[in-house]
Amino acid sequence: MQAEIITIGDEILIGQIVDSNSAFISKELNKIGVSVYQITSVQDDQDHILRSLEEAGNRSSVVIITGGLGPTKDDVTKPTLCRFFEDELVKDDEVMAHIEELFKKYINSPISDLNRQQAMVPTKAKVLHNAFGTAPGLWMKKDKVSYFFLPGVPYEMKNLITTSVLPAIIEEYERPHIVHKTIMTYGMGESAIAEKIADWEDNLPSEVKLAYLPNLGRVRLRLSAKGPDKEALLAMVEAEAKKLYPLIGDIMYGEEEDGAIEVQIGKLLIEKQMTLSTAESFTGGKIAEQITSVPGASNYFKGSVVCYATETKVKILGVPKELIDRHSVVSEEVAIAMAERAKNLLGTDFAIATTGNAGPTKGDSDADVGTVYIAISSPKGTFAQQFSMGNHRERVVKKSVGKAFELLYKEILNF
Amino acid sequence: MQAEIITIGDEILIGQIVDSNSAFISKELNKIGVSVYQITSVQDDQDHILRSLEEAGNRSSVVIITGGLGPTKDDVTKPTLCRFFEDELVKDDEVMAHIEELFKKYINSPISDLNRQQAMVPTKAKVLHNAFGTAPGLWMKKDKVSYFFLPGVPYEMKNLITTSVLPAIIEEYERPHIVHKTIMTYGMGESAIAEKIADWEDNLPSEVKLAYLPNLGRVRLRLSAKGPDKEALLAMVEAEAKKLYPLIGDIMYGEEEDGAIEVQIGKLLIEKQMTLSTAESFTGGKIAEQITSVPGASNYFKGSVVCYATETKVKILGVPKELIDRHSVVSEEVAIAMAERAKNLLGTDFAIATTGNAGPTKGDSDADVGTVYIAISSPKGTFAQQFSMGNHRERVVKKSVGKAFELLYKEILNF
Repeated sequence: MQAEIITIGDEILIGQIVDSNSAFISKELNKIGVSVYQITSVQDDQDHILRSLEEAGNRSSVVIITGGLGPTKDDVTKPTLCRFFEDELVKDDEVMAHIEELFKKYINSPISDLNRQQAMVPTKAKVLHNAFGTAPGLWMKKDKVSYFFLPGVPYEMKNLITTSVLPAIIEEYERPHIVHKTIMTYGMGESAIAEKIADWEDNLPSEVKLAYLPNLGRVRLRLSAKGPDKEALLAMVEAEAKKLYPLIGDIMYGEEEDGAIEVQIGKLLIEKQMTLSTAESFTGGKIAEQITSVPGASNYFKGSVVCYATETKVKILGVPKELIDRHSVVSEEVAIAMAERAKNLLGTDFAIATTGNAGPTKGDSDADVGTVYIAISSPKGTFAQQFSMGNHRERVVKKSVGKAFELLYKEILNF
Repeated sequence: MQAEIITIGDEILIGQIVDSNSAFISKELNKIGVSVYQITSVQDDQDHILRSLEEAGNRSSVVIITGGLGPTKDDVTKPTLCRFFEDELVKDDEVMAHIEELFKKYINSPISDLNRQQAMVPTKAKVLHNAFGTAPGLWMKKDKVSYFFLPGVPYEMKNLITTSVLPAIIEEYERPHIVHKTIMTYGMGESAIAEKIADWEDNLPSEVKLAYLPNLGRVRLRLSAKGPDKEALLAMVEAEAKKLYPLIGDIMYGEEEDGAIEVQIGKLLIEKQMTLSTAESFTGGKIAEQITSVPGASNYFKGSVVCYATETKVKILGVPKELIDRHSVVSEEVAIAMAERAKNLLGTDFAIATTGNAGPTKGDSDADVGTVYIAISSPKGTFAQQFSMGNHRERVVKKSVGKAFELLYKEILNF
């Protein structure tokens, strides 16, 4: 069973926003056994939208369209779908009541004529309740193809997908199951891994597909299978994974389905009832931010001292000024001192510290751009490692944050 | 002059990655006067790719394709383009030399047969040098349409766009100019703004297009114009913007082309030679991270105390325990104390502090999920404001970070 996504909006085609809606929708559809065949981003233009609706409907049984449902003049989805379905707009009283309620609760201005127009829906549409906004979702059908029109605002769209669209598809269409298992590796390139596992890959059953996903020095290996029997698929993928593990034991660190590495670190810390703090220089709070993006992080994360200026390392963290003068601020010694000071000051079991130079200029030290030290302090002691992360500021930070989590993860496993 | 983007890869269609490449490419093309008509994401499937190449070439003069150029078996772009262009692969000595060089410099393993295959290119292709990777870019032509095939790894792709693709398009095609001006507003909804500026919008010249871009409580208004004379377009957009400003003076805070609000804050601080620190509770370092994402932030940002646990607020920041006990940790008083302590401890002119409850549970305080306080401390004093940010953890944090920057921005303007 196959679906397509059409995203409408000039803002996507001029690069003003990144289309993250499609990834969310694709993932959710996959979970219920629906494959996304194509994603198409089109302009706020009636003819362009019409052609896309037509083409997508010829290929797939479900088409999900986001964007262009707002109240302003650049929103052309509703007039376009009236043309496509040969329909007209009528006022929907329930939608109108919902708009009135939202205005009463959240907005301190009278309801405008533009907002009233949001209660106008095509006569042939099934209205999908948008709990978080004034533009309702619309479900329409043509030649057995379902078209779901949703607002482009991410949290309104996400809620409509979960509460209305997925249940409708489950009710209406027979679907196979799709299972994925994604194994995360580090420290080896795509082609080296491919050679290492060539025999295994050549002998995969035809139902199981393998993909290599390289990003920022790590390669993820994704196994996928599709079919009517979920248990059989899971068993098949599991069996192949088991054959794979011994081949890559030295470079794998987990499975994506278990969550990102910061999620896995959180699980381990809760399990072991241990705590964490960070002292961040050039990473500027990104490690703390990523740790606290995990719900429940307050159970194990105490906080971070972001010391972007050298003086902050001395004043707040209490790293001795002499140590910095002797070894320079970007050094193994300072990284170790930062981690130990953070661990002691915040009273935690583990601490991560970073010091380095992300560029574009050399800053407070003589270290080359891209030279960084990452230190991990644990109840057993503290160590620091040096890395050269290249000279692309954003990548230096991202790669360092990833490396810090890898080092910490391996360390926590020892407790 | 019109272009299209095709992104190849199952990982996009199962929602495993967000396609951020397309936004980058679109933005860069726009700068040189090329409109992107459509973005299409397709599977790692030869027939699907062939159909997309065909269709895009029928509509547009330039097609940029990313992905599927890697060395592994799931990468099918090269065999597909051989079918499309009726061509075959030959070894390119320069590419081979570059691969050997990269392996010598960065990779501690012998060059594999798979890597050698990356030096195989179609005979009709112009090879585009990929400084950062082993898969070269390829420029091919069919019936006057240019097809640029690029690797999907973002930094390799970005470098190829800048150094090879844009110069080739500039050399090869006549292009109009495209100008945008995006005005950022806050505190008023899309439809209320639309009513406020209806007369102005109705009288826009036909060359100027207006779009409303709502996100997280803010609406951006984008004016766009396209034509042969860049100066005339700039003047026309500027003239319309000037008529608009008095209508929205109370809700606008800048232009997107000047950079994000944290970039504008940075410019102001450098201009005024003033400094900044933060004390973050539920925002977990996200404010610091966003500040330090601006190159040169070390000129004005000293650091942050991320106090995710209540005890950290006491131990590191020195917020009096009695104050927390008396008013609760999520309170105006504690927010103000945090901002003042950060400002004093880190010796800065300004400080931002946040305390609140992002959910999913109530944590260390009795405050409702979504209740947050944001404090700004300046040389003139300190104030805090309370907000209700809803009950969606990620949005509570994002909206609060945005609000903190708005409050700080307005405060810095007074100095």
